[in-house]
Amino acid sequence: MAVRAGVVVTGTEVLSGRVTDQNGPWVARQLLEMGVDVAHITVCGDRPADLTAQLQFLADQRVDLIVTTGGLGPTADDLTVATVAALCGRELQLDAELEQHIDAIVQRWRSRMSTAVDSEPLNAGIRKQALVPDGAQSIAPTGTAPGVAIPATGPLPAILILPGPPRELQEMWPAALESAPVAAALAARSEVRQSTIRAYGLSEADLAATLRTAEVEVPEFGDLEITTCLRLGELEMVTRYPDSADAAYAKLSAQVAETHGRQIFSTDGSTIDDIVATRLSGHLIATAESCTGGMIAARLTDRAGSSAYVTGGVVSYSNEVKSDLLGVPAEMIAEHGAVSEQVAASMAEGVRRRVGVDIAVSTTGVAGPGGGTELKPVGTVCFGIAMADRPTVTRTLRLPGDRASVRALSTTAAMHMLAAALA
Amino acid sequence: MAVRAGVVVTGTEVLSGRVTDQNGPWVARQLLEMGVDVAHITVCGDRPADLTAQLQFLADQRVDLIVTTGGLGPTADDLTVATVAALCGRELQLDAELEQHIDAIVQRWRSRMSTAVDSEPLNAGIRKQALVPDGAQSIAPTGTAPGVAIPATGPLPAILILPGPPRELQEMWPAALESAPVAAALAARSEVRQSTIRAYGLSEADLAATLRTAEVEVPEFGDLEITTCLRLGELEMVTRYPDSADAAYAKLSAQVAETHGRQIFSTDGSTIDDIVATRLSGHLIATAESCTGGMIAARLTDRAGSSAYVTGGVVSYSNEVKSDLLGVPAEMIAEHGAVSEQVAASMAEGVRRRVGVDIAVSTTGVAGPGGGTELKPVGTVCFGIAMADRPTVTRTLRLPGDRASVRALSTTAAMHMLAAALA
Repeated sequence: MAVRAGVVVTGTEVLSGRVTDQNGPWVARQLLEMGVDVAHITVCGDRPADLTAQLQFLADQRVDLIVTTGGLGPTADDLTVATVAALCGRELQLDAELEQHIDAIVQRWRSRMSTAVDSEPLNAGIRKQALVPDGAQSIAPTGTAPGVAIPATGPLPAILILPGPPRELQEMWPAALESAPVAAALAARSEVRQSTIRAYGLSEADLAATLRTAEVEVPEFGDLEITTCLRLGELEMVTRYPDSADAAYAKLSAQVAETHGRQIFSTDGSTIDDIVATRLSGHLIATAESCTGGMIAARLTDRAGSSAYVTGGVVSYSNEVKSDLLGVPAEMIAEHGAVSEQVAASMAEGVRRRVGVDIAVSTTGVAGPGGGTELKPVGTVCFGIAMADRPTVTRTLRLPGDRASVRALSTTAAMHMLAAALA
Repeated sequence: MAVRAGVVVTGTEVLSGRVTDQNGPWVARQLLEMGVDVAHITVCGDRPADLTAQLQFLADQRVDLIVTTGGLGPTADDLTVATVAALCGRELQLDAELEQHIDAIVQRWRSRMSTAVDSEPLNAGIRKQALVPDGAQSIAPTGTAPGVAIPATGPLPAILILPGPPRELQEMWPAALESAPVAAALAARSEVRQSTIRAYGLSEADLAATLRTAEVEVPEFGDLEITTCLRLGELEMVTRYPDSADAAYAKLSAQVAETHGRQIFSTDGSTIDDIVATRLSGHLIATAESCTGGMIAARLTDRAGSSAYVTGGVVSYSNEVKSDLLGVPAEMIAEHGAVSEQVAASMAEGVRRRVGVDIAVSTTGVAGPGGGTELKPVGTVCFGIAMADRPTVTRTLRLPGDRASVRALSTTAAMHMLAAALA
């Protein structure tokens, strides 16, 4: 890949770990999908010297484009444009048209504010946001902060300056790509393909063994850039390759499918959530959750349009709710314990009957840190799937990690059980 | 602050935006709380040249300590230790005792594997993980990968190498701090205090105005390092300062409290989740969720020990479930619409009665992208709080953003309504 880029994320709240950065990963994904090689992401606080050092570092690494995020607000600690302009030796000029544009946006916003705001600092802020370095192109704001695209300057690469709020940045992205400085920087990029295989219940070691075999048997294996990543029990294998390596990837993916077909659930980029949503079309689903406490329902309803198949569910955290709302017999809980396949089955059947749907999923387990026993240690989770005209299926897993890990792994396991039941 | 640190996060899956990094923010928070100034976080893929460039950059920035995360696995693409050793000009030596220690861990893990694993690659991997640079100190693994602490080498600072899995890294952190190379690098750090004020429903502009006033009125305001951050409607103001600025911070926080007391909900670091959990002590709570789809229940049950006060809840996504499980009259839904304060009140009262608890919270709204009307556009969310022996309280908010934003803002709004009701 000929064209390289670096991303600089600014903001003390990100550097200090109080806010999770969404922009670096998002920009990196966009660039990679376009065939641009992202070499570095760096994070700095709101200190001009540190920002300058990172920009200079990326320039020294000979990237063709730097994308910065954040630091475009109206206040004094928002310094990105001034810092970049100084590094490039470009004077800041007031763009009167841009100033009017921002002013109109701020006036609209101001008219909805309950409290009075001083005009003077407000106007100073607007003027500051309308400053554009000499020879740069501004990117129209979707919030109040415009972006700036600066052409390559001597040894410095093209620099694209975007605001920090993820929604603003993402909405401005298409216009930013079309700006002359960015388009010129990315002109030489080569198209790459990216293919993803996802498996559930496959170990990294087993996939690594298959890849070692493929390395010997697949011609042009070296043209395939493979990364694997294990996350919540799902193993993802992403391969990037030029058009010329199409046949090599076809051979590799056939070998992986042959060896691990039982664990592979996606070869077209779809996630387990996509698959469950597709398979739920024409069905109605309800949930009965104990240890996952609503996470499965929240995940199912995360998708636009999910009201077509999600009717609802019950979070039966206490035994009383299991009995009162789901009809789980108190004697069953007393005999087998709340964490048992019997109770999981009864919960799923109970919510299915109660809500009148054709498929229901249940969880009951020990999320920890307390509540574990020798027979049912922390991480023991029972699942149930009840469907119309079919025997109820139950399963017990021992999931590793702390409370958050057990709950997240349980939610993902339930999604995979749903996908299998609906296949 | 005299002591500066940088963090290098390695891993193509992080650099390419497929996995959200947790380590950089976590390490930064630990260091900041100890009084170490974190200047840079950098992210690179599994390419030695890029890793070397980032390490050299941080050394050039004169940090006293570099912490790296990831790249310690047994396979060939895990290159951190070898790359750092090469940069420091230190030979790798096999630590036989460490090799035995890792081997024992791997044997235990292997005995639980279902599939057979080749011995030779496995042993090669163990040997690789037991290589320690000359003069470095190994940090005992909590997974299979040991950490390494390397003393400052000529112009290079001390380098602490930790594994990528967040749980392993976090468990190894205390031992890493005690290692001689890290302890020496951090010896000169000065104690700093960090205080946090959290407000809900306060705008950044209003707080900025208060801070501008304080800048003039508070002596030694310049010793206070203030960052503000708005997230899900909560405005967080974090101030770091030396002991000597205690009085300045006391004056500042008093001014902020005087001006914005109504919106401030925390001055001691506690989150709204902490506050709700504390106030729920001695109560029993249930939820009735429509647009949040289980997110409030999931958030309440996220905490260890929440079973003491969370009994459960109902996700009533469809109107039928609102009526059948919560007893919301169908005529009420027909007359006022499912998104109405009447229905929100009826949902909260319904679940409270049905489950037999003393407080219940409900949500019903238009999360979007579809379903909006002129009167009830996307983002319109009605909330209800039903309590024993008190009139039910309802409220309607218009929340900005996309589906995920509306759902997240609704969940946080519900937490604040709960905290207020229980105050």
